[in-house]
Amino acid sequence: MSINLVRLLKSCPVQYMNTRMSSDKVLDIEHLNPNVITMQYAVRGPIVIRAVEIEKELEKGMPKPFKNVIKANIGDAHAMGQKPITFIRQVLACVCNPILTECGGYPSDVVEHAKTILRGCGGHSAGAYSQSTGIDVIRRHVAEFIEKRDGVPCDPENVILSGGASESIRNVLKMFIRPDGGKKVGIMIPIPQYPLYSATVAEFGLGQVGYFLHEETNWSLEEEELERSYKESLKQYDTRVLCVINPGNPTGQVLTRKNIETIIKFAHRHKLFLMADEVYQDNIYAEGSKFYSFKKVINEMGAPYNKMELASFHSVSKGYMGECGMRGGYVEFFNLDPQVFVMFKKMISAKLCSTILGQVVMDTVVNPPKPGDPSYNQWLEEKTAVLDSLKKRATLVKEAYGSIEGIKCNEVQGAMYAFPQLELPPRAVETARSLNQEPDFFYAMKLLESTGVCIVPGSGFGQREGTYHFRTTILPQTDLMKEMLNRFKSFHMKFLEEYK
Amino acid sequence: MSINLVRLLKSCPVQYMNTRMSSDKVLDIEHLNPNVITMQYAVRGPIVIRAVEIEKELEKGMPKPFKNVIKANIGDAHAMGQKPITFIRQVLACVCNPILTECGGYPSDVVEHAKTILRGCGGHSAGAYSQSTGIDVIRRHVAEFIEKRDGVPCDPENVILSGGASESIRNVLKMFIRPDGGKKVGIMIPIPQYPLYSATVAEFGLGQVGYFLHEETNWSLEEEELERSYKESLKQYDTRVLCVINPGNPTGQVLTRKNIETIIKFAHRHKLFLMADEVYQDNIYAEGSKFYSFKKVINEMGAPYNKMELASFHSVSKGYMGECGMRGGYVEFFNLDPQVFVMFKKMISAKLCSTILGQVVMDTVVNPPKPGDPSYNQWLEEKTAVLDSLKKRATLVKEAYGSIEGIKCNEVQGAMYAFPQLELPPRAVETARSLNQEPDFFYAMKLLESTGVCIVPGSGFGQREGTYHFRTTILPQTDLMKEMLNRFKSFHMKFLEEYK
Repeated sequence: MSINLVRLLKSCPVQYMNTRMSSDKVLDIEHLNPNVITMQYAVRGPIVIRAVEIEKELEKGMPKPFKNVIKANIGDAHAMGQKPITFIRQVLACVCNPILTECGGYPSDVVEHAKTILRGCGGHSAGAYSQSTGIDVIRRHVAEFIEKRDGVPCDPENVILSGGASESIRNVLKMFIRPDGGKKVGIMIPIPQYPLYSATVAEFGLGQVGYFLHEETNWSLEEEELERSYKESLKQYDTRVLCVINPGNPTGQVLTRKNIETIIKFAHRHKLFLMADEVYQDNIYAEGSKFYSFKKVINEMGAPYNKMELASFHSVSKGYMGECGMRGGYVEFFNLDPQVFVMFKKMISAKLCSTILGQVVMDTVVNPPKPGDPSYNQWLEEKTAVLDSLKKRATLVKEAYGSIEGIKCNEVQGAMYAFPQLELPPRAVETARSLNQEPDFFYAMKLLESTGVCIVPGSGFGQREGTYHFRTTILPQTDLMKEMLNRFKSFHMKFLEEYK
Repeated sequence: MSINLVRLLKSCPVQYMNTRMSSDKVLDIEHLNPNVITMQYAVRGPIVIRAVEIEKELEKGMPKPFKNVIKANIGDAHAMGQKPITFIRQVLACVCNPILTECGGYPSDVVEHAKTILRGCGGHSAGAYSQSTGIDVIRRHVAEFIEKRDGVPCDPENVILSGGASESIRNVLKMFIRPDGGKKVGIMIPIPQYPLYSATVAEFGLGQVGYFLHEETNWSLEEEELERSYKESLKQYDTRVLCVINPGNPTGQVLTRKNIETIIKFAHRHKLFLMADEVYQDNIYAEGSKFYSFKKVINEMGAPYNKMELASFHSVSKGYMGECGMRGGYVEFFNLDPQVFVMFKKMISAKLCSTILGQVVMDTVVNPPKPGDPSYNQWLEEKTAVLDSLKKRATLVKEAYGSIEGIKCNEVQGAMYAFPQLELPPRAVETARSLNQEPDFFYAMKLLESTGVCIVPGSGFGQREGTYHFRTTILPQTDLMKEMLNRFKSFHMKFLEEYK
């Protein structure tokens, strides 16, 4: 068994570690797809598995130095107390149980939305499969939303609905797999990155090509670093894809328009397929920051850039709605090769279709109540309240972490995360290494066990050698957030004391 | 460009065929993952794509010799007019919009179901992610359902919820991929089979090992044929998996208990991992036929069989509920290697979780109203009506096709399909071949264009060389079914006349 495998197994939860390393099973670890062994998804990694265990231990009355686990590991707004948008849930209820459209209990625009969607469903039921690409009327609404957002035409045929953005991102990356050996296709991803990318690249046997974001200038994306990363990658890979996450996850930066232009020119120069992860497009907090879609910028730059291939992604899981559990999302293709598009549609057809109710939520997001509609005022009020509150918490987090000794925290311009840097005492680093752990993993696990605060170590997202970070969401509601910051601060001081 | 590729592209819809074969794209067909090009999914293949086009042409008023398309291509009950089960939709509505649990408009057991589920959701909202394995309380209900069904214990930890059964089937197959070259793992699948299997095996670069079902004895599964297929496969593959679909899709047979025991002994003898696709377990129509789960039989056979590795699958899409669009399903693992299980859970974590509302529908299926509950009578009435009607249509289809010259149709014992054999005149076969088409594809396309009846050619499922079939669902409601059979019969007579 390789050292890597042993090391990976070591990071597994304790209860599994006493099982034998060889077996009489048909499918044992030696026969398992090695890419499945290699891939890691830190957002739900060992720290989070342990957090769930601790919650169960607390339920059983096991004594702990804290009364609850605070999960700041995942961008899961409702789990942290954010309330659903009424309009979205009313439309969903009507689509699920259409008799509600006749009972007079719902606003007329809710009823109209539900009826429009139901007319687009097979047998007028959300229980029928849709076309694999999604329900036509919803794809049209998405296209109208994109057109309005960008001031650039959008063909509904280029919009494919999916179970969250993750599914679309995976589907696009799947097209680049070279199963027959030979040079792997290199996929450029930011470091730090959202581990869906590293996990999928590993699972699919693609080549991970990391380009570092520049922490000192608030995680900006520098042309020079893109060039360095690309050139180096060519020794090993046939690099053909550039992924950009904007606003950034885990880094919370918002790209300027100028920066986007630079990136586009870079991608054009090296003939790269652009993947723009824009699921946080509604989550912009900083003064002066503004969201520009890659589609818009590419088009406004004109030829030759407006002929570039682009896949851009959006989701119902983030923004002001935070409907993660609904699994709604889409990819919009731009300039995709028509033959490849046919094959893409064939490929997704074997999965039949994404959840209809997830598609419905996507519809309510791209086609919300308009001024004058009966639901408009409440919708706007709820939306504004969520975004205002997130904005406040973005500031609160930055200020709180920034005030702690040995922690540096950039401004959270957008998205739902901060990615502060930890200055760890050398003795802590040594102790971690002696346990075969990443130092920030060691820190995060100790934090969890002592305080119940669950964050994700920076090593799960990637970071420059010798630096240590963690990702925290800004999602705990304000009081809980303050409680979390207090627990964190007091732990951190003790930790520094212990390892100084 | 290979001949295969040219041939595959030829089967694409016409509008895509005039594009150039080489391109200046980053991702053109030459660079596309070749497994994506190879894979086929006939249930949504060219015939169905054309059917959707024809529907749009009819909407535009284009004259056709028929007034509507009848889609008998896919097991999509609601699309064919089956009504949703009230209880399921009421629970869904309450989970989506929990204020409905307080308004007094719903039966108390509906409200209780919804509240139980909501208590299991993060932040008591269906908008929160669940654990990747699914909501705990629903996994418990699934385990209780399995225990009751089989009389054998079931640990909820072995139950993983997913977006339909398809997702679970794909996840299990994914574990057998050998990305590093070397001998491919062979996956034994029935021929004819449900093309999810052939498509996924192709996409994942696994080895398809077909074993033929025996048409003359109503698609029975013979030990001798299993042995032949297995032994032959070893020349090319490391065969480690046996997939069984029971009740059969597309073939509609129900395995006897004795047959299942034979299969289990065969799998044990050759150390095969068993995958039991049991999504039609509620769809049993024939006198004397009964559903036995592989889990039950394996356990009742005792040692050494009760140590075999098994993955069994269920879904909300079929049965009496037909909630395809909801995307609910599960896999139950039995005797899975614990280390492999840890890796499996890590692998699915990168996809976050399956749709919560799909999980909710799964809950209503495994935990329906009980005698005495306020919803019980209506639920039972609706369920019985659907199953009785399907049973009638199963008989109707067999009798109708059986009475047509040149068509043989086995009894539809279960599931939702018939797979009749077509005796095609040699001149029709020649004509098809001259067009580079499979003869049954040629037949199905002509049927569609002349009558609007959409079925799937047998070549999409696999069949013995020189035989031709088609799959039709039994889902059109009785009147439409009769209309479909009339159109079919009259087309068939003309076809025989034309090519005799």
